[in-house]
Amino acid sequence: MTRIGETPVKTTGGAAVWSGQRQITLPSLALECGATLAPVTIAYETWGRLTAERDNAVLLCHALTGDAHAHDSARPDDPRAGWWNPLVGPGRVFDTNRSFVICSNVLGGCYGSTGPTSEHPEDGQPYRLRFPHITVGDMVNAQRALLAALGIERLAVVAGGSVGGLQALEWAIAYPEQVSRAVVIGATPRLSTQGLAIDGIARQAIMTDPRWRGGDYAPDEGPSVGLGIARMLAMLTYTSPEGLDARFGRQLATRASDWPAFGPRRDVESYLSYQANKLVARFDANAYLYLTSAMDHYDAAAGRGSDAEALARIHAETLVIGMSSDWLYPAATVRALAESINAAGGRAQYREITSLEGHDAFLKDWGQMDAALRSFLPS
Amino acid sequence: MTRIGETPVKTTGGAAVWSGQRQITLPSLALECGATLAPVTIAYETWGRLTAERDNAVLLCHALTGDAHAHDSARPDDPRAGWWNPLVGPGRVFDTNRSFVICSNVLGGCYGSTGPTSEHPEDGQPYRLRFPHITVGDMVNAQRALLAALGIERLAVVAGGSVGGLQALEWAIAYPEQVSRAVVIGATPRLSTQGLAIDGIARQAIMTDPRWRGGDYAPDEGPSVGLGIARMLAMLTYTSPEGLDARFGRQLATRASDWPAFGPRRDVESYLSYQANKLVARFDANAYLYLTSAMDHYDAAAGRGSDAEALARIHAETLVIGMSSDWLYPAATVRALAESINAAGGRAQYREITSLEGHDAFLKDWGQMDAALRSFLPS
Repeated sequence: MTRIGETPVKTTGGAAVWSGQRQITLPSLALECGATLAPVTIAYETWGRLTAERDNAVLLCHALTGDAHAHDSARPDDPRAGWWNPLVGPGRVFDTNRSFVICSNVLGGCYGSTGPTSEHPEDGQPYRLRFPHITVGDMVNAQRALLAALGIERLAVVAGGSVGGLQALEWAIAYPEQVSRAVVIGATPRLSTQGLAIDGIARQAIMTDPRWRGGDYAPDEGPSVGLGIARMLAMLTYTSPEGLDARFGRQLATRASDWPAFGPRRDVESYLSYQANKLVARFDANAYLYLTSAMDHYDAAAGRGSDAEALARIHAETLVIGMSSDWLYPAATVRALAESINAAGGRAQYREITSLEGHDAFLKDWGQMDAALRSFLPS
Repeated sequence: MTRIGETPVKTTGGAAVWSGQRQITLPSLALECGATLAPVTIAYETWGRLTAERDNAVLLCHALTGDAHAHDSARPDDPRAGWWNPLVGPGRVFDTNRSFVICSNVLGGCYGSTGPTSEHPEDGQPYRLRFPHITVGDMVNAQRALLAALGIERLAVVAGGSVGGLQALEWAIAYPEQVSRAVVIGATPRLSTQGLAIDGIARQAIMTDPRWRGGDYAPDEGPSVGLGIARMLAMLTYTSPEGLDARFGRQLATRASDWPAFGPRRDVESYLSYQANKLVARFDANAYLYLTSAMDHYDAAAGRGSDAEALARIHAETLVIGMSSDWLYPAATVRALAESINAAGGRAQYREITSLEGHDAFLKDWGQMDAALRSFLPS
């Protein structure tokens, strides 16, 4: 096992045992735009033990504003303690008794991996907008560099939803010999034009906030209004019309909000402002610009001729999961991805989560997610 | 024919002939909130001639940011010269040779009818946020007061789309003895929760713009960024995902924009910013707050027990038109309105415009609109 940078690594008989979040710092990472990040730090967590054969690695790819904390071994029964907490652990579908489960914070994010809040090596000041425009391919390459540092050459499983699903798909296309099984959830070869439009409006809200200052804001003086509005928009895309009707209807709000109201505030507006404030308190606005842009930019066919040519590269057995009420990545288009993989000679299954939770069902409907994954993963 | 205020009225043998925009000022209008607007001005246009029997009046109700100029008799062949220009005129489906067609600017708007930009009678300064919270019912009552002043007791037809469709529906429910035929387009008894959420986010964008100043901005110094973002959001709800895919796809923008961009601007973002600037140049932000709130607040069942009880009041023959790709008022829910009217003992027909134009199809797909209306209106 190669030791890299200052990362603490404990080895036991050729296999690594990890606990808690680690950071690994690699000398450099070449980006698709042609630039090089040097150095590049990747924050990650792992659960379980890598076999001597190094054949049981499972990579979980988080969604847009997520982090490496997919599972919380100290609070395994709190569904919110890790973003896929109920799916990971001893005896669970991502079984840490048998698998070595890895989750890293995405490149360009703000939870420990190099991103726009990281120090620029030349002056020690935050990159801010000096950070290069990273892509989903770059996110995958950062994960791949991490795996190489951990001595892992092949993934038993790569799985993720939303922009994490784009990463799982890109893994299977870009590195077919390194992926045995891929789970692509709520993702398609590219975002719809409507999705591009919503992300574009969200970025406008951030960039037109006077506190954005061209990206040069102090950490606690950022564009909270613009980022809040961006989050409200995003929450719309994560929920479903049916789900919002069922949960909020036309009810008036019962809790206060620090956002202005025009007339009586409705419960759904109160919910959105609550979610906005939660994100503003935990996330960097510039990172939001970079990550949504990477999501928008992703096109599985780019540089590969066509979807058919891109998908024909996949060797992995693939599980594609759609959410019945998803309107960011509609179930019909997710199903079409599975069909396209099969039409290109691959081996894809499609499962659908029947839910009112919209795009976010993969982070909420644990029973159906568990069943879909169990039907696919080796038992 | 009663003369009201300073309105110029020409009468010919008991029937009125109108040309160009008129304004009528009425002493007062009682509002649903309990307040009274005094005086209240209504801007309107008419085309055609009222019969001596006063039985050929057709009221057209415009959409959110529209105006009274439904038809332009000087430019009848320019579809954009009036918002329903191809449907109105001699020999057209709203035949000005036979009908007396009326369109008034909505109460609370900024195109001549009393609204937040109007002078408050006490100090001659604009109402701004001193304007009362008006409702769709108030809009209808303002139209009804106009009709009374014109000597019209009964409408041969009331027709409108979107918030104009809510007005047509409310006319048929509130004043069943005064409406012979109602055409309700792209509207339902109430907006979905998702629609409420989008309108709420749009208002947040306006109210958090520092230039909004609690509504007390100078006419040329208003919250242009916030209103622009509100318009971008609204444009999403007026278009369809399929239509945006077909028209813009992932193309990069070819025209410049004064909105900031993060990386290369896409064509769909450019389109939205263009539409934003057009609205900012022509519309008042406070009026936008009032009108979207009225749209949100509308609930046909409010004060009437239930939808069934409300719809049972309708005596008019009703044509309900849905747009196949509408996701603001989805076609299935518009169809359900027609079914509910019939279930309540009414006479409703449903027609659907098959289109990629989304909610806005009723302002674009002239051939289908013409055919749907001709099948319903007396020939």
